[in-house]
Amino acid sequence: MADELTGQRVITQIGIIVRDVEAKARAWSEIFGLPMPTISTTDSYKITHSEYRGAATHARARLAFFRFENITIELIEPVDGPSTWADQLEAHGDSLHHIAFSLGGVDAMMAKLPALEGAGLKLVQRGDWAPDGRYLYLDGVDRLGAILEMLP
Amino acid sequence: MADELTGQRVITQIGIIVRDVEAKARAWSEIFGLPMPTISTTDSYKITHSEYRGAATHARARLAFFRFENITIELIEPVDGPSTWADQLEAHGDSLHHIAFSLGGVDAMMAKLPALEGAGLKLVQRGDWAPDGRYLYLDGVDRLGAILEMLP
Repeated sequence: MADELTGQRVITQIGIIVRDVEAKARAWSEIFGLPMPTISTTDSYKITHSEYRGAATHARARLAFFRFENITIELIEPVDGPSTWADQLEAHGDSLHHIAFSLGGVDAMMAKLPALEGAGLKLVQRGDWAPDGRYLYLDGVDRLGAILEMLP
Repeated sequence: MADELTGQRVITQIGIIVRDVEAKARAWSEIFGLPMPTISTTDSYKITHSEYRGAATHARARLAFFRFENITIELIEPVDGPSTWADQLEAHGDSLHHIAFSLGGVDAMMAKLPALEGAGLKLVQRGDWAPDGRYLYLDGVDRLGAILEMLP
């Protein structure tokens, strides 16, 4: 298994599920002295083709990003559902959600997916963004204690 | 508030609560091709002087660390209690627990604590380690969506 992820030794992002992205973003901005970011909304299904637990979903999220020197913090407010975002907010409230890795492009990422799933990291949610982005959430809770996000 | 934490733009560690630190450490080692770390146990109360929610506690934890290029992953298996570790394991199962910042020494850290608490980040647990280490967990869930750990 080691070879499948060799070189992925940089964790690029920490994702946090929040009920109110504006309020949380204001607090991150204030406490860390960082500029208040623009809050964006994920694309519609026509672009995202989102799937959660193998079924199409129109779930969306409102997002805010804070760039720390070595890593990015992503705040995620679920909008509608179903999604891992909405399920986690309901089950656990405001909480840390995932750690992300960048795999060097969508093709490289998709090529690694079978080996990742073979290692017990089951694909739980996926989505695209314009023009050619894609994310995969792998449910690593049983094996690693955390959801992993794979990014291009 | 911004001045109080200025310069703390590096997140040094991500903490994960796990029920079985050996099993989770083996999986991290296998999936990321990292050496299996030594698993340590936090010191006894005589050294840690641990407090949880303002009361002395004999809680301990078994720990494993993985050094990524830009950040460290800490696996934490609660041993006895009460502690934020044991409470989170009971309430949420295996799950991401905290993000950590290094504040440049114990004295600098303690000097910043009043301002951090003034910003709504209440001290929830603390402990020492030999010869002169100390950690503080600040409950930032309401304001930021995550527990923060302050390290020297």
